[in-house]
Formats: sequence, structure tokens, C-alpha cells
Amino acid sequence: MKKSIGAKTILYPAPVLIVGTYDKDGRPNAMTAAWGGICCSSPPCVTVSLRKATYSYGCIVDSGAYTLSIPSETYVAAADYMGMASGKKEDKFKTAGLTPVKSDQVNAPYVKEFPLVLECKLIHTLEIGLHTQFVGEVVDIKADEDVLNEKGLPRMEKVAPFVFGNGIREYWALGEMIGRGFDIGKKFNPQN
Amino acid sequence: MKKSIGAKTILYPAPVLIVGTYDKDGRPNAMTAAWGGICCSSPPCVTVSLRKATYSYGCIVDSGAYTLSIPSETYVAAADYMGMASGKKEDKFKTAGLTPVKSDQVNAPYVKEFPLVLECKLIHTLEIGLHTQFVGEVVDIKADEDVLNEKGLPRMEKVAPFVFGNGIREYWALGEMIGRGFDIGKKFNPQN
Repeated sequence: MKKSIGAKTILYPAPVLIVGTYDKDGRPNAMTAAWGGICCSSPPCVTVSLRKATYSYGCIVDSGAYTLSIPSETYVAAADYMGMASGKKEDKFKTAGLTPVKSDQVNAPYVKEFPLVLECKLIHTLEIGLHTQFVGEVVDIKADEDVLNEKGLPRMEKVAPFVFGNGIREYWALGEMIGRGFDIGKKFNPQN
Repeated sequence: MKKSIGAKTILYPAPVLIVGTYDKDGRPNAMTAAWGGICCSSPPCVTVSLRKATYSYGCIVDSGAYTLSIPSETYVAAADYMGMASGKKEDKFKTAGLTPVKSDQVNAPYVKEFPLVLECKLIHTLEIGLHTQFVGEVVDIKADEDVLNEKGLPRMEKVAPFVFGNGIREYWALGEMIGRGFDIGKKFNPQN
């Protein structure tokens, strides 16, 4: 039996995205966001939604660029910290013991210690409500060489991303691979 | 050492969202999408991006409504199937052995067997490229009573959602809870 729990932002699971930006003075900033994801295959685009009150908001508007770095599960505490502190007041890279690296494609820094990085050029800004959605074209992806498989794609178990459950405020690691896409579903109709 | 792997849609992990719609004749349709997520807290809004070629695209444009049902990991094959087949040609609910239930808040069906459902009213349509992004306001969430915790929020381990890795085309279950949000990061700065 289903029960109404009201109008909430509970969509399980949400990704954990570290948004990298430079401010007007060229100082690197990083902020954790869970409101985002892929929004288009061609051109490859991703979204991230931020409140205007965040320091990163102004940095994206001014620079027209951002990165999304995907932290491995061993960095859960750093990711959580970077979602609480403000870049207005402190150097979050320094406090978290992380290293900003300037992207070679866009004017934004990424997190050296995180295995998968998307370099994004801002192409749309959509005002929705409390959050503004930034759509960025992915101009390049950088990955640690040791996470790549034989086809040059990142292995999930090596990237070891984790996810967030809003409302319950829990971070969860991934477990086992349970099926291959565009394959396991053929049992219902082999014609697809 | 980081290596460039080009401009791709690889953002780990992506959610597995079952988009529920009615067509003009009132027939229920469901389609699996991984390009989506939360985009605003107030009003609570979620996005899902679809290609114009999909049957669901026209259904959302015509009805102005959709649901997002979150499948549990036991339904991975059904979810994969619903991402391959087209509602133009077949009744995917029937083939997958699933039950459409009309939402009480919007003109769209959800999947009875899936534990968490968002009922969404279309409020923005953004043309990006191959994909069109639909922004829906979450007007209600329905959850199976037996997945709710003492605060009335869905337990992650009971919903048991799974995620998708694009490129590698793999579905992964969740593993262990590894930290509490707005808490574990305080070790870096207890003031936050």
C-alpha cells in the first residue's frame, strides 16, 4: 500500500558532485552538490543546480565554466565538509587536504585526488526557484589512468563513487554489479 | 596521472528512473531514463531528459505530466527492458508484468510494484540538443508504507534503488551506508 509523504525532493539515489570553480580573484573553490546529472547526449551536457546564496553560484556566472569531480567513497567526509562550508570564508581545498588543478579546457579547477572529472562550459542558465540550474557542455573528461578498462572507459568499482539519500541524509557506497544494460532486459523481449 | 577520454556523457553513477505517462488515448506507458535528477528544492523539482523520437516525449508534451518511479534492484531486468522497447509498439507494463496505477495528483501512471514514486507536473521544457529536458514540479511523493522509517522517510535499504554506469553499460546495486550527511564532514571544521 502506498502512502503520500508530500511534495519533497526525495529521489533516490542522488549523485555526489564536487563543483569546481575559480572566483574573480582566481581562487579555487569547490562545493558539493547532489542536485545534478546528465541532461543530454549530444552535445554531452550535465546539469548542476545551486542556490544563489552559494559562493560557487557567482563564480559560475562570472567564469562561465565549472568542473564536476566525482569523489571515491574514501573521500566521503571531505565531500560532506565541502557541502557545508562556504568558499566565501575558507579555502575548502586546503582544509580538506585536496589539490586544485586547473582544467586545460575550461577556466575552472578540478580535484586532483578524485578519479573522474568533467570539464564543463556553461551553455544555459535556468531559474527554477530556490535553485538555479546550470547546464554545462562537457568539453572533456579526465580520468585517472588506473581506473580505466581496456576500452578506455572508467570502471565503476575503481571510481567507487557513492550516492546521497536526501531527507535521511545518508551516504551510501555501491555494492555489486547486478546486470548489463541493453542486455539483461532482453529476457522480456529478445527483439529489442 | 589523469588522462583525457574525450567529451562524453560519463557521470557516475546515474539514477534509474522509470518515466510514467499516458498517451492521447489514455494508454499507460513507461520508459527507463538515466538522464535526470533533482534540480530544485523549492518548489521541489526534478528533471528528466528524453529524445524527441521516444513515445514518452510526445506523451509528456501532450499531458503536461509524468511520474518517476524508482525500481528496486530486484527489478533490474524489467527496468532494462523498459529502456529498450518502445511504447509505440508494445505495452511495456504488460510485457514486464508490472501494474500501472493512475496518480491521484497528475495525469500520469506510476508503477505499483516500485517502492518510491514522484508525481510531477511539467513546468519547463528546455531544448538542449539530442535530448529535451523536462522540468517537473513534484506535487506529491508516494512510497510503500513498509519502506518508511519512523520519521516517515524512505529507508535507502528498503527502497534498494540501483544505479547505471553509462559507457560501460552496467547496473550496480548499493552497498553499505558509509556516513551521515551534514555530520561526517564536521571533522574538517566543527563550526559548520
